[in-house]
Amino acid sequence: MSKILITTVPFADKDRLTLDLMEDAGIEYLINPLNKKLSEDELKEMVTDSEVIIAGTEPITSNVMDAATNLKLISRVGIGLDSVDLLAARERGIKVSYTPDAPAPSVAELTICLMLCLLRSVHISNSEMHSGKWHRFFGRRLAEVTLGIIGVGRIGTRVLNRTISFGTPKILVNDLKPNRELDRRFKLEWASKEKIFQEADVISLHLPLTHLTKDMIRREHLLSMKKDAVIINTSRGGIINEQDLYNVMQSGHLSGAAVDVFDSEPYSGPLRNIQRCLLTAHMGSMSLDCRARMEIEATEEAIRVLTGRQLQRLVPESEYEAQSIRP
Amino acid sequence: MSKILITTVPFADKDRLTLDLMEDAGIEYLINPLNKKLSEDELKEMVTDSEVIIAGTEPITSNVMDAATNLKLISRVGIGLDSVDLLAARERGIKVSYTPDAPAPSVAELTICLMLCLLRSVHISNSEMHSGKWHRFFGRRLAEVTLGIIGVGRIGTRVLNRTISFGTPKILVNDLKPNRELDRRFKLEWASKEKIFQEADVISLHLPLTHLTKDMIRREHLLSMKKDAVIINTSRGGIINEQDLYNVMQSGHLSGAAVDVFDSEPYSGPLRNIQRCLLTAHMGSMSLDCRARMEIEATEEAIRVLTGRQLQRLVPESEYEAQSIRP
Repeated sequence: MSKILITTVPFADKDRLTLDLMEDAGIEYLINPLNKKLSEDELKEMVTDSEVIIAGTEPITSNVMDAATNLKLISRVGIGLDSVDLLAARERGIKVSYTPDAPAPSVAELTICLMLCLLRSVHISNSEMHSGKWHRFFGRRLAEVTLGIIGVGRIGTRVLNRTISFGTPKILVNDLKPNRELDRRFKLEWASKEKIFQEADVISLHLPLTHLTKDMIRREHLLSMKKDAVIINTSRGGIINEQDLYNVMQSGHLSGAAVDVFDSEPYSGPLRNIQRCLLTAHMGSMSLDCRARMEIEATEEAIRVLTGRQLQRLVPESEYEAQSIRP
Repeated sequence: MSKILITTVPFADKDRLTLDLMEDAGIEYLINPLNKKLSEDELKEMVTDSEVIIAGTEPITSNVMDAATNLKLISRVGIGLDSVDLLAARERGIKVSYTPDAPAPSVAELTICLMLCLLRSVHISNSEMHSGKWHRFFGRRLAEVTLGIIGVGRIGTRVLNRTISFGTPKILVNDLKPNRELDRRFKLEWASKEKIFQEADVISLHLPLTHLTKDMIRREHLLSMKKDAVIINTSRGGIINEQDLYNVMQSGHLSGAAVDVFDSEPYSGPLRNIQRCLLTAHMGSMSLDCRARMEIEATEEAIRVLTGRQLQRLVPESEYEAQSIRP
């Protein structure tokens, strides 16, 4: 019987250090044999008597926990906790850890890449060139646009940091509460989400998925954006309503969008039919160094709980509070 | 009869300021009615008695100049002079101006975009997603790679400047002679081209096309690069031998390439069949602000020569010297 169930895939694909750590500690593990994001039912069936789940973004619900009678720890590889029912875990005495810092540089860098692609129509030109069409698209530089960042935590701040050398003249930011520390480091303006929707040319989201952010950007918000604005979501599917994004783009509004995260993954929805919609397969954290760090941190935490040592990456109280707010 | 022939297209597409400038000065102009890059013969036929060509990258040869009996000035929109026979122009008393600074920020920004795309397989994921395939590609951050920049003039230096915030640990640079000023601004190492080919993970070219750089990167150089290296050419077609690049990539070598410039444009060659080759349609300078500045600078120079004022953007002697070196 494996004590650790590793549901997130790929795992230890480029570096077997995490496997060595578990083997050296004499701990049996099982890596998700379905090699895809699990559904609630699949997870329920797989979890049986595991004591730890090294988890991706599959739904770890109260149902799953009830089936996992020996579960002591959910060790999330990554930062988002929308997939874990934290309150149900607490009721059952199951601890939850995560790796919030590890993915941030990788997500921020992908975000900059997607901004530049959208502004210069690189994804469209590449598609056209490969199908034999030549058109020189006009674009804009980051120095020509107003940037809007919604959510300036670990990732949003790193995005800001990387835009400095591009000379963006106006940066609007929004968060639950303004972090005045950032005013010292960056030239930025705190603004309402509505003002960002209306005034920004490039809008990027760096938010958790919570009851407050679910469907936060719907048809009316998308339509309030400039006709040639672009929007980027590398945070969580569901924050922008996917169907609304499709409808609004299909109508000709927005000059582009980049979507790395989806309601349901693997994604197979209608945004695939919109060429100016740049789609990637949830690859924000997928740089070799960040992914390795995430896996190692999550594995170390799993080994700690199984060898009676103190956990170091427990999810803070604020995350439980965020989940206790129901709409 | 139009005094100014504008061959470069698009021209005044987003802003008609340049047309106003010519009209206010009472100068007739003709914009290339074929709306594509002209061949030598097409240009010869079109140039007739124009006094100025506001030129793109079409071949302005001694043949063309012999047909252009009234030609006083070739005013290049851009920086590259490989398309203009400078020595033939000098022999005929035809002046040549250019706009070397205007495109640099735009080309540098596209280059960073292409680097990030290649490192994270964004172009491949986008193609796959649009055709219904989901695969999470591993990538690397700029902080994980050795960067090699060949040519650190106006554009290469701006590329360096934009990489700083990404934390690239090792930067190898090469140029005809080391510019020691850069050592004060950046942490970099001057290296031979051979060392860059062998050691860099990301190689970017920022060179003019001259007798020294034509076919500078051939099969043997590409094969001397790391198997998972990526190479980017936003400077001029012909510096990397296109057929060799195709053959080497077809054989599985190099993890990616980004090519914005081609031997013959519009491009319709075999690189279109290699998915990991990111292709764009000579869009380096195509940001709205840079393109506008290039067009305005070239138009002002054309008006100066026709109104008897002193030219301000004449091509320096070093460019004539570079063309006088024959292999």
